[in-house]
Amino acid sequence: MPKKKKAKKAQTYVVGVDLGGTKILAAVVNEKGKILSEVKRPTLPASGAEKIIQRLIQTVRRAIKEAKVPTKSILAVGVGVPAPVDPRTGFLFEVTNIPTLNNCALGQRLSEALEMPVFVDNDVNVGTVGEHALGAGRGTKDMVGIFVGTGVGGGVIVNGRLRHGFRNSAGEVGHMFVGFKGQADEAMCGCGRPGCLEAYASRTAIERDIRAAISAGRKTVMTKLLEKGGKTRITSGLLAEALKREDPLVTEVMDRATTYLTILVASIVNFFDPEMIVIGGGVTEALGERLVEPIRRDAPRWFIQQHDADKVRVVSAKLGDYAGVLGAATIARESLT
Amino acid sequence: MPKKKKAKKAQTYVVGVDLGGTKILAAVVNEKGKILSEVKRPTLPASGAEKIIQRLIQTVRRAIKEAKVPTKSILAVGVGVPAPVDPRTGFLFEVTNIPTLNNCALGQRLSEALEMPVFVDNDVNVGTVGEHALGAGRGTKDMVGIFVGTGVGGGVIVNGRLRHGFRNSAGEVGHMFVGFKGQADEAMCGCGRPGCLEAYASRTAIERDIRAAISAGRKTVMTKLLEKGGKTRITSGLLAEALKREDPLVTEVMDRATTYLTILVASIVNFFDPEMIVIGGGVTEALGERLVEPIRRDAPRWFIQQHDADKVRVVSAKLGDYAGVLGAATIARESLT
Repeated sequence: MPKKKKAKKAQTYVVGVDLGGTKILAAVVNEKGKILSEVKRPTLPASGAEKIIQRLIQTVRRAIKEAKVPTKSILAVGVGVPAPVDPRTGFLFEVTNIPTLNNCALGQRLSEALEMPVFVDNDVNVGTVGEHALGAGRGTKDMVGIFVGTGVGGGVIVNGRLRHGFRNSAGEVGHMFVGFKGQADEAMCGCGRPGCLEAYASRTAIERDIRAAISAGRKTVMTKLLEKGGKTRITSGLLAEALKREDPLVTEVMDRATTYLTILVASIVNFFDPEMIVIGGGVTEALGERLVEPIRRDAPRWFIQQHDADKVRVVSAKLGDYAGVLGAATIARESLT
Repeated sequence: MPKKKKAKKAQTYVVGVDLGGTKILAAVVNEKGKILSEVKRPTLPASGAEKIIQRLIQTVRRAIKEAKVPTKSILAVGVGVPAPVDPRTGFLFEVTNIPTLNNCALGQRLSEALEMPVFVDNDVNVGTVGEHALGAGRGTKDMVGIFVGTGVGGGVIVNGRLRHGFRNSAGEVGHMFVGFKGQADEAMCGCGRPGCLEAYASRTAIERDIRAAISAGRKTVMTKLLEKGGKTRITSGLLAEALKREDPLVTEVMDRATTYLTILVASIVNFFDPEMIVIGGGVTEALGERLVEPIRRDAPRWFIQQHDADKVRVVSAKLGDYAGVLGAATIARESLT
């Protein structure tokens, strides 16, 4: 039999973009999820929609140039944005951190300028896809991502694909109700409702509780840490530092937040029974296993089905700041097929 | 062109079985979901596993006989049971209401005796499938069923199919946490944990709260209704009667239960964003719109995404006692394809 010459298939690439309130990060990613080039620019949210869009286009072009691959081998662009998005059209609704982009047809604008398909999705959805495809959730069929930062967001993977839901709003784990008491004094969420997980376990909620205790006269190392660092916000880094010093107040507040996250994980498992829960976001990155280990240990006690309770994995996110660009790149590639 | 003679395809049938703590209901169902025959027998849970299995087999055979269709046109049997099940094998784990069936290979036993494929699933999963295929949820892609009775159970439909989950325990909506307070005095669930929806909104929880108020000296028409009916349990029917008479205590307790169900619906929508929530079960059947209307009205206020909030339908189940046999029949038919 004559030997058949196998044509070598040309490598293809996609661009992943993470548009945040402070910075734009763009990366060219190969078929295996490896980053070939990355470019960072400030978002400058006050500069206006047109300038932000131009800066996005330039950042993508720069990343493509630096990747030194044939331009025509770049198939598509994926973008994660901190806003609800219509993923079919790339239309942004309310963009809290970058209000000049409210009601912007971002997908269409970028696609016209870059002359290739552009897929836009919500940043926590994108982060969940990143962790699923290339991070902690690799190889799982069903996975839920929980990102604990200024707020608490999340995403849901069903049968290996991101679930958008009927109105493209699936995965809002921060607004699952964990502590509704129907009383006037309960913790209010930033969304204006009581009882949301975010009202107990976000960095904002943790800061609120620590400050309230300080106002009420409680002593804490946090007062010194804030003065020393010349900071006005209780950052995730300061929380980690205070916990390392075993500050009683910060430990108490963090333990409460962790308990509510444990309850959230159990609620999700009892409803959805996923294979894995991945916990990420700024607070998680700063605290690491100090946050995740108690959740992993205690959540199974709350599972209604105890059979195989230990098989449901509760793990830390792995990709850190790169979940966004890698998830966006994955979405771009998957959307093409 | 010669006219092609179209062979008339022979009709096929399946048997749906609803095994409950008190009765066995079996029905022969055609391709359109129409019931041709139905047979009811008592379960007699104390009679032991062998006798219950024999009674199940006889009930199915009787239903087949009464349907008057060719025996070989009956393709399969579906069974709903009040227990966690491994749906691949039909093995029952703990059967609270029929303990003699604990750890029973029911699927295999029935399949050997009836000489056809038998598919076994949890009763609320089966009810959800029934409502989706032939009841309130017909035509929806993603739907969640919530059944409010002695306990609160549920099921999840994703992309038109029942979701079992990683450990076959998806849909345990009664054990999502809605009111966790971390305090000693909070309502405990039958599962031994505080904060579960079931601890606030099941018939059992409602009865507990009414009895506690009576013990504390509150006046209610329920005291008379219980005496008059010679009943020892506050049934769903008695709840409906007391509400019709606008009894202040029962109204207060039901309103609280309804608020927690509203919170549950919103939690599910914020996490999963389904197209429809179907509310059924004994309490719902007795109370009807008195229970469902306030949930439909108030749940959207708790949706984090307000866009198209009114498009998510919150409706009453339609099939009543037939959700079980029709769902079991649907599972049998779908499992064959």
